[in-house]
Amino acid sequence: MDRYDIAIIGTGPGGLEAAITAKIRNKNILLIGNKNLSLKVEKAHTIKNYLGISDVAGEDLTARFKKHLSDMEIEITEDKISSVYAMGDYFALQGADVMYEAETVILATGVVLGKPYPGENEYLGKGVSYCATCDAPLYRGKTAAVLGFSPKEEAEAAFLGEVCEKVYYFPQYKEPVELSKDNIEICMDKPKEIKGEMTVNTLVTDSGEVSVDGVFILRESVAPSQLVPGLLTEDNHVKVNRKLETSIPGCFACGDITGTPYQYIKAAGEGNVAALSAVAYLDEKKRKM
Amino acid sequence: MDRYDIAIIGTGPGGLEAAITAKIRNKNILLIGNKNLSLKVEKAHTIKNYLGISDVAGEDLTARFKKHLSDMEIEITEDKISSVYAMGDYFALQGADVMYEAETVILATGVVLGKPYPGENEYLGKGVSYCATCDAPLYRGKTAAVLGFSPKEEAEAAFLGEVCEKVYYFPQYKEPVELSKDNIEICMDKPKEIKGEMTVNTLVTDSGEVSVDGVFILRESVAPSQLVPGLLTEDNHVKVNRKLETSIPGCFACGDITGTPYQYIKAAGEGNVAALSAVAYLDEKKRKM
Repeated sequence: MDRYDIAIIGTGPGGLEAAITAKIRNKNILLIGNKNLSLKVEKAHTIKNYLGISDVAGEDLTARFKKHLSDMEIEITEDKISSVYAMGDYFALQGADVMYEAETVILATGVVLGKPYPGENEYLGKGVSYCATCDAPLYRGKTAAVLGFSPKEEAEAAFLGEVCEKVYYFPQYKEPVELSKDNIEICMDKPKEIKGEMTVNTLVTDSGEVSVDGVFILRESVAPSQLVPGLLTEDNHVKVNRKLETSIPGCFACGDITGTPYQYIKAAGEGNVAALSAVAYLDEKKRKM
Repeated sequence: MDRYDIAIIGTGPGGLEAAITAKIRNKNILLIGNKNLSLKVEKAHTIKNYLGISDVAGEDLTARFKKHLSDMEIEITEDKISSVYAMGDYFALQGADVMYEAETVILATGVVLGKPYPGENEYLGKGVSYCATCDAPLYRGKTAAVLGFSPKEEAEAAFLGEVCEKVYYFPQYKEPVELSKDNIEICMDKPKEIKGEMTVNTLVTDSGEVSVDGVFILRESVAPSQLVPGLLTEDNHVKVNRKLETSIPGCFACGDITGTPYQYIKAAGEGNVAALSAVAYLDEKKRKM
């Protein structure tokens, strides 16, 4: 079996940029993920802050990413990695049917969201959003529900309050809410289901129904420690330094898995740095032999 | 005078992405730099790893960046900041003629190539200056050397020629010099060292010594520790953490100024993070009031 120089797990912006940069540096790469790239990117309504590609729909950005890969002759291996084992000198990656080997690994699997609400996947990009910064402009003068999974998300809700006519804020944590704005209502009932027709129109809770145009689900849950046994995490994200090195030598990470902000251009920037750090690690290893 | 929420210094990919992200978050921004954006980007032959824009010439990428700014209605203020002062609660930015104020600052000025001249740091403010407009009056009737790092600086030298008795101009670029004034002498020898006693009195070159009262060093960007007094640096770069926070609260940095790799997509990704960190800082500050 071939042992790759760099195995990259994930086909969101972080993984793709890592693959492109590693390929330019003449490394033998394995890019594992989905040929349709990232569902999250594809379903994004409009992305306004990917510098150089202004005001782009998620599916158009996806098409651009695919073109970039094909221009660079980079192939995607469609598989799902369930575990990555640090074998000392190399890494073994457990796919569905195959075990892969690589000198270095770049984790770019994104954040694993908790259990989705009924209707959440169905209406993703049709009223369900994971990013206030990205999608707020779509709800100007409209009504939105915000499900915040940490007090940090109150700032996001406050921002939505500036844009929307009305915001219902559902704190999904125990700390007291410090949000006071006339058009933001704090709701303590429990969200149960997202409903709509073509797009979202209702959030069902345990005590009734709320009419909304959009539901922002601002979660922060990831279990990368299950993917790579022994990997240090911090606040449910992979702990990395500025070089995107994880706690395991030869293992790097980039994109949402390394923490907020969950933004495409941030992920791509980190993919670039992670790939160059992996290249430097390989060079250093070769020098020592 | 208006006090801006966020002042962004620099119009390379880091500064531009920071401006776009901050604008989306409804912040009142000041973007200071060059309307032609980054000379480095513009002069780049081909860029292959800016994810989503495959195989692009520097001038085409520049045109895309300009379009993105105009789509977002972001204006560039053409000025050069010589110093940023942390005033406790806000920052004061010294432009050529104007002082700006902002709650937060994002440094995106790129890397200063080359080391400082021997004597440069020692005599800064004692005969060494980075700003002709600011300090010319100190040299009325005196003799100054001007080290210009781009043809743009010829205008500064001409201005000094109106004030000083004698100006020695040392072009640090290859384009022909278009400066003709009786009291301005174009010098092609290479500046080596700045010497003096209490204040500067000599510029040493590779072919001798020139007696001067002052030395104006007009680079594209000022070294970060000189730009922001008190800012911690590491290996000639601004020391930042993963949130792109510097050692001074409210002051953030992104792009080449924070260290290698010097890559456009890395700079853009950091601009995004720096802007969102500045937004979080402003929100936190507001909450405390």
